Amino acid sequence: MSEALESTTPTWPRNAWYVACTPDEIADKPLGRQICGERMVLYRKASGDAVALEDFCPHRGAPLSLGFVRDDLLVCGYHGLAMGCKGQADNMPGQKVKGFPPIRTFPIVERYGFIWVWPGDAEQASLDKLHHLEWAESDAWAYGGGLFHIKCDYRLMVDNLMDLTHETYVHASSIGQKEIDETPVKTRIVGDEVQTSRTIDGVKAPPFWQMALRGAGLDGDATVDRWQICRFSLPSHVMIEVGVALAGTGGYDADMANKAASIVVDFITPETETTHWYFWGMARQFAVDNELLTNEIREGQGGIFTEDLDMLEQQQANLLRHPARRLLKLNIDAGGVRSRMMIDRAIAAENGDASDDSDSIFDQAAA
Amino acid sequence: MSEALESTTPTWPRNAWYVACTPDEIADKPLGRQICGERMVLYRKASGDAVALEDFCPHRGAPLSLGFVRDDLLVCGYHGLAMGCKGQADNMPGQKVKGFPPIRTFPIVERYGFIWVWPGDAEQASLDKLHHLEWAESDAWAYGGGLFHIKCDYRLMVDNLMDLTHETYVHASSIGQKEIDETPVKTRIVGDEVQTSRTIDGVKAPPFWQMALRGAGLDGDATVDRWQICRFSLPSHVMIEVGVALAGTGGYDADMANKAASIVVDFITPETETTHWYFWGMARQFAVDNELLTNEIREGQGGIFTEDLDMLEQQQANLLRHPARRLLKLNIDAGGVRSRMMIDRAIAAENGDASDDSDSIFDQAAA
Amino acid sequence: MSEALESTTPTWPRNAWYVACTPDEIADKPLGRQICGERMVLYRKASGDAVALEDFCPHRGAPLSLGFVRDDLLVCGYHGLAMGCKGQADNMPGQKVKGFPPIRTFPIVERYGFIWVWPGDAEQASLDKLHHLEWAESDAWAYGGGLFHIKCDYRLMVDNLMDLTHETYVHASSIGQKEIDETPVKTRIVGDEVQTSRTIDGVKAPPFWQMALRGAGLDGDATVDRWQICRFSLPSHVMIEVGVALAGTGGYDADMANKAASIVVDFITPETETTHWYFWGMARQFAVDNELLTNEIREGQGGIFTEDLDMLEQQQANLLRHPARRLLKLNIDAGGVRSRMMIDRAIAAENGDASDDSDSIFDQAAA
Repeated sequence: MSEALESTTPTWPRNAWYVACTPDEIADKPLGRQICGERMVLYRKASGDAVALEDFCPHRGAPLSLGFVRDDLLVCGYHGLAMGCKGQADNMPGQKVKGFPPIRTFPIVERYGFIWVWPGDAEQASLDKLHHLEWAESDAWAYGGGLFHIKCDYRLMVDNLMDLTHETYVHASSIGQKEIDETPVKTRIVGDEVQTSRTIDGVKAPPFWQMALRGAGLDGDATVDRWQICRFSLPSHVMIEVGVALAGTGGYDADMANKAASIVVDFITPETETTHWYFWGMARQFAVDNELLTNEIREGQGGIFTEDLDMLEQQQANLLRHPARRLLKLNIDAGGVRSRMMIDRAIAAENGDASDDSDSIFDQAAA
Repeated sequence: MSEALESTTPTWPRNAWYVACTPDEIADKPLGRQICGERMVLYRKASGDAVALEDFCPHRGAPLSLGFVRDDLLVCGYHGLAMGCKGQADNMPGQKVKGFPPIRTFPIVERYGFIWVWPGDAEQASLDKLHHLEWAESDAWAYGGGLFHIKCDYRLMVDNLMDLTHETYVHASSIGQKEIDETPVKTRIVGDEVQTSRTIDGVKAPPFWQMALRGAGLDGDATVDRWQICRFSLPSHVMIEVGVALAGTGGYDADMANKAASIVVDFITPETETTHWYFWGMARQFAVDNELLTNEIREGQGGIFTEDLDMLEQQQANLLRHPARRLLKLNIDAGGVRSRMMIDRAIAAENGDASDDSDSIFDQAAA
Repeated sequence: MSEALESTTPTWPRNAWYVACTPDEIADKPLGRQICGERMVLYRKASGDAVALEDFCPHRGAPLSLGFVRDDLLVCGYHGLAMGCKGQADNMPGQKVKGFPPIRTFPIVERYGFIWVWPGDAEQASLDKLHHLEWAESDAWAYGGGLFHIKCDYRLMVDNLMDLTHETYVHASSIGQKEIDETPVKTRIVGDEVQTSRTIDGVKAPPFWQMALRGAGLDGDATVDRWQICRFSLPSHVMIEVGVALAGTGGYDADMANKAASIVVDFITPETETTHWYFWGMARQFAVDNELLTNEIREGQGGIFTEDLDMLEQQQANLLRHPARRLLKLNIDAGGVRSRMMIDRAIAAENGDASDDSDSIFDQAAA
């Protein structure tokens, strides 16, 4: 295998901020992780600033993530070569290493409770390009979440989240309900976002939402109006506004006292062409000081998203068994289809390709 | 990998009935299984009829075997596309799916206690081509068996069963005995069958057969005449008539009261080039109402065939390590050699190739 | 895959004695093991002589290592073909097998407590080419050791052992100490050996050596002079003289009463391009009758070398992820670099290639 082989066009935009890890993952020692095909080591300096370097000691090729941090230098755990945060070889007892070619560094920033990296061209990295996440900075919101490693193309996860019809089938016992797939969705482009939305009025809340209603101090058995607004944005973030309001009180726009509303947070970070890191969570605007509720929601959501994990990994395996097979697109797939088009255009633009010669796996819609 | 790659000439006949599963495997939910390279989902309709479809949802490629049956339709467990038993997309809430190209169906039939499928050209499928199995339909017989997944070319299993010399070595503590490999075999073609037979007169029964003799109400320590008649037929069935009779009472032809006689049943279903499903069992004509004995035999046979599994998987691994190495054939291999020739001719005929340009792994016999 | 593919130039000398196993590994039954890409079966005759054959039954390709020894013949566990120690098919009940082409045999010898094989051209095998190991034959020495299977190129282990700087980092809690990587090494060629040495005077002994000092009846807390002399010889043996002497008593040359001295024994046997068998041990000249101490040392050494195993396997994985990346060489790498050059020359000579067109993974030294 040659280095050339590794540089075939990836299926993700490279010049974008991706969630690399959560702060606790680099609290005690360096972390090795592959992001968009790039093997990185992430660690924290005494100042608190995070650093991302290539996870490859230029001396003997050991993973630097097996080393330790000393005086803001990352010391290789094999022979002690100390690397600086600019990727330069800084020192090694008894050796002259200043002439070593530096290893690669990656732009990195900590914000909104996550560590973000930019796996592409560092020159183009800019904080302006980081999405603003109001729920992550406001006391009016509470947040809980987790991380899964999933063995499927990250775009299958985008598809999954942009079409919640699957809740009826994959999550029948928690958030699914028959009325979901009987209600049509509306898909549109709003600025840089793809939005797919669905509202279901006058129904019983499914078990997860009964729990949320009670957590918000409302009657879990009440008739409710339910909504789901999926928002995809580049490179692969999906924020889903979800909630239930007491029937007739205004739905999405109901007064806080009459609803349980939250945002399903999904940061989807490609690892390889067929695996990804899935940072999931829920930001909510009710009972924000109730940590027990935060844990209860996290546990419930973790169980639900494990059902997705199972389905997606089996879907991926089936697609690999049928590599030439083309999929079909329905109305409900419009959100995923539009999101993939946005991804394809971003990749094409990075490659200086103006036309959108997208490698879509979709045929024309059946009707 | 391209679809083209998957369609290189297989090493099995495609136009034949293979055992796909036992009825209990589709009693509660659909079953996904790969048969002769074809990934299938098998399920049962309310009428009791079994159905075999491609295990691929045309919508998003999820395995249909993760779904459920409703009103004789197979509903995809991801987004609810309901497929009919002809492979057609039948309905999906809120979607127009009638125009979907159908997925593939496979001829299927339930008979003799097994579900059989025809992985090749459906036009050629005919019940006439299903072997008649008298033991499976007569009250004069009892049957018990099991299923193994084995990581070797199915033809190595055919070889194994058509040369029972290995019993002396692989099954030394159960059905093997020194006299087996000291007794020559006779191989001949009888109609569409390859037959290899061996009779051993005036010996002590090995442990498994002592158990069988006692099960038949006979003296386990008696001197016996033993026989083994291996019958191969296309595509890959091996029925082995085996038994012991009290010495001098007529052997194979002895009166039922003087023998313990049975058929070792072997349906060998290719999964991939190097794996197969092995449906094994024993049909017997003695003590047919004794279920405890059926279980005892099944347990004994399962233990014995696990010894074959171990040997065959290690043989396969060794052959893969030595891909260019050619094997030798001895007299005892004639049954396997003839069976493989029959397989090769069937494959050649399917490909419209009159000559038998067989890809035999055997050299000329050493002498 | 073709047999041709398997015969691409290996990264090891083929015409050399390698440790294949320890005597206890063939005490009860045949052993299958891959040495330098050659799959072998090793067993012992009644005379005590060891035999090494190709692990492939010429009849049906089963591994002969699954068989048993009878009358000095290796009987295949599948159908009973009995192979002689010259690789000839000797007999099989009821079959004529004398005309079979023989399988390959490998020169083999038992000496110094190990079974050695010669995986290359048998014509060139000669006991003269076996290194003399005085410690293995003299009552003045005690020995204990073990065997690891390690998933990395055997040359990474040579590098590891020829640069003990890593002790400071990988073995910080046992044999490592800060003074090691602060002390320069001296590398030179002495006859057929590469030698890298380091002496550290007037230091505290690290934990492992405190234990050894006490085992030798000395004060574990004493100030000591420490030495390490790493000796590489073809094909891949590394003997490391190590020890500590009470400070000022002569170091390496100190009287036996004032030091704890031993040889770290490393026989590194390639299995594949990216895996090897690592026979490690320690031969010592103090308290040689103390078996408890032998066990204590073996346990300590096993723990320490497990740390190397972890590092080397992760280094190998990282190198495979970056196949085109070239490593750098420092002063401390001179031992490994010189050893690899000696290996490359030996391989080139085997291939009739006079020039040393070595496929070194090192760039020119950075300075």
